[in-house]
Amino acid sequence: MKKLIFKSLLYALLLPMFPGILMAQDRYTESQTYILETPYDVPNLTPPDGKKVKNVILMIGDGMSLMHVYSAWTANRGKLNLDNCQVVGLAKTYCADKLITDSGASATAMATGQKTNYHYVGVDTEGKPLKSIIDLASENGKSTGIAVTCRLWDATPASFCCHNIDRENEAEIVTDYINCNADYVFGGGAKLFENREDGRDIFKELSNKGYQISRNWDEVAKIKSGKVFAVVDSIDTPLPKLRGDLLARASLKGIELLNQNANGFFMMIEGSQLDDYGHFNDLDLLMQETLDFDRTIGKIYEWAAQDGETLVIVTSDHETGGLTLIDGDKEEGRIVCKFSTDGHSGAMVPVYAFGPGSEKFNGIYENTAIFDKIKELLNL
Amino acid sequence: MKKLIFKSLLYALLLPMFPGILMAQDRYTESQTYILETPYDVPNLTPPDGKKVKNVILMIGDGMSLMHVYSAWTANRGKLNLDNCQVVGLAKTYCADKLITDSGASATAMATGQKTNYHYVGVDTEGKPLKSIIDLASENGKSTGIAVTCRLWDATPASFCCHNIDRENEAEIVTDYINCNADYVFGGGAKLFENREDGRDIFKELSNKGYQISRNWDEVAKIKSGKVFAVVDSIDTPLPKLRGDLLARASLKGIELLNQNANGFFMMIEGSQLDDYGHFNDLDLLMQETLDFDRTIGKIYEWAAQDGETLVIVTSDHETGGLTLIDGDKEEGRIVCKFSTDGHSGAMVPVYAFGPGSEKFNGIYENTAIFDKIKELLNL
Repeated sequence: MKKLIFKSLLYALLLPMFPGILMAQDRYTESQTYILETPYDVPNLTPPDGKKVKNVILMIGDGMSLMHVYSAWTANRGKLNLDNCQVVGLAKTYCADKLITDSGASATAMATGQKTNYHYVGVDTEGKPLKSIIDLASENGKSTGIAVTCRLWDATPASFCCHNIDRENEAEIVTDYINCNADYVFGGGAKLFENREDGRDIFKELSNKGYQISRNWDEVAKIKSGKVFAVVDSIDTPLPKLRGDLLARASLKGIELLNQNANGFFMMIEGSQLDDYGHFNDLDLLMQETLDFDRTIGKIYEWAAQDGETLVIVTSDHETGGLTLIDGDKEEGRIVCKFSTDGHSGAMVPVYAFGPGSEKFNGIYENTAIFDKIKELLNL
Repeated sequence: MKKLIFKSLLYALLLPMFPGILMAQDRYTESQTYILETPYDVPNLTPPDGKKVKNVILMIGDGMSLMHVYSAWTANRGKLNLDNCQVVGLAKTYCADKLITDSGASATAMATGQKTNYHYVGVDTEGKPLKSIIDLASENGKSTGIAVTCRLWDATPASFCCHNIDRENEAEIVTDYINCNADYVFGGGAKLFENREDGRDIFKELSNKGYQISRNWDEVAKIKSGKVFAVVDSIDTPLPKLRGDLLARASLKGIELLNQNANGFFMMIEGSQLDDYGHFNDLDLLMQETLDFDRTIGKIYEWAAQDGETLVIVTSDHETGGLTLIDGDKEEGRIVCKFSTDGHSGAMVPVYAFGPGSEKFNGIYENTAIFDKIKELLNL
């Protein structure tokens, strides 16, 4: 209150002297405009009509809310691959000790079915390691994998494969991949796998565990079978314009390998960097990431539609940026947006389901229920 | 750009003199805190298990997005009546000539199944009057009604009962109620029904059409049957704290009367003023309205659960305010929010369905599909 009174007095004093201050006192942040120059086609897919769920692919757009999706939809001239989903639901994202979650607690909820504390990854509120859906699927004879565009110690992938009470313990988190049950891992973050302070060579240890280690896409592309650990960048993978459709390629390669298992597979795919560009309030990069994620969804939907026994769930861990679409034109692919925070916001996030088992994802539920439903559908 | 340079120069000049200005230059609007002192109970409802849809109640929270709902859910200690819904969907809200719709074009889409122009009510893009779901239900022998907290010439009720190419033609719009097929009308706006510039007495004309005219709640409460036109305030109904559960009472009275028809009924209920308080960026009043609307939803759900043949759809026409929940605590019922605009924003809005026929409202669709689905379910 004191601060407010001080401000009011200050304005009252200054205003007559400098009328420009009034202009400067816009109540809202400046808006940003983005135009998608080259829109992409979205096919009309016929969803599979079978009931059997052999495989599940969980796709997470980090920080991707309803507003991100509608903004990207407008930019791509009123169409998105995500529109081909059959069922939507809403998931509550709060974590055990905070209303506004981070990616660690939220991804842990989806990966393990338990709400945990802010910044925890793959552990319960007591710090006890939790079995993830990757562990359960693996124990039940399925193949498992993850493909992300960020460093592998980042909260989302770490919640599926690692266990730590602090997502900032990055070097420690990376060592957990040694005991992870994933058969296919694709992401960035080589920096902490080699030349480590503790002298360990994680790549070597992974190799001893039977993984083929790949350090760039060309190597990954050539692999035809077996376990793969691909770390193609020092930290995150490059910006969307530079990396092209790397996430789609890496995801489809994972599917190609995991699908060799007659028992089926579980895979987690993350559009990791929407969150970063939400934090930076950078609409241009945010839309590039969102649209790249949607194009990846398109490729996965297309594969799943043909396969007929694969359920694809697309969702998010939380909203980032308080993105608001205040103007635009879907014929021009132009959007005008504002951000209201450089942090996360509290929201339910939509869950979009495609393929057999989709109907289970309807309604309003906790983000932990995403784990429960997948577990049930895969009989784990 | 010039404006930016000017601003920058101004700041550079002023900053050393008045450090307080820096504080005032927050990139985001000030946050607002709201605490719900007295939370309300939410019963666990058993949804009806029948399939027959005899009645449909469409409830519209004007300007109510996912963020409003999650904020209200947090304020009420992590529970809302809306959580008892069985099915959710997402509706696209853009109108025929603009990405960001107003209430007129959006309510017309839901009322008539056609996208129309910004600020149009109950007419197509050519200005031609459209039959609304109220007209169709009435033609098919059902009773129909509306209950709103705003003036009756406001865009949402007008889109269901009136026809005009400009929602601002208020005095003209009001005269359309004479030919409206609603059997029960409850709202505000007496000002334009009497003492009109054109000398017409709309109340008298409505009375000649067979309506019982009520000018306050006590009169309405006593009515046991027949057609009712209740206009209980000069403009809008009072603030939520003053009017209490008026919307719930008015809605249940409408149901009591309309339900006397063995062929069933259609009713539209609006939480009208969420939109106003979104425009004013007034979190306190916005939450009061949102929670009042949710309590009304609770009463309607309870009635529908007992009735067993009533489908209740809750949705919105658009988002207002770019509301972002940046902090809070659901144990304390405390929310901290920011607004990023004083206008509407572009978004899909959730559609929440309860009762027989709910499953039809799953997935992603145009807001016009809400009309199509109701029409199909009621065989209109």
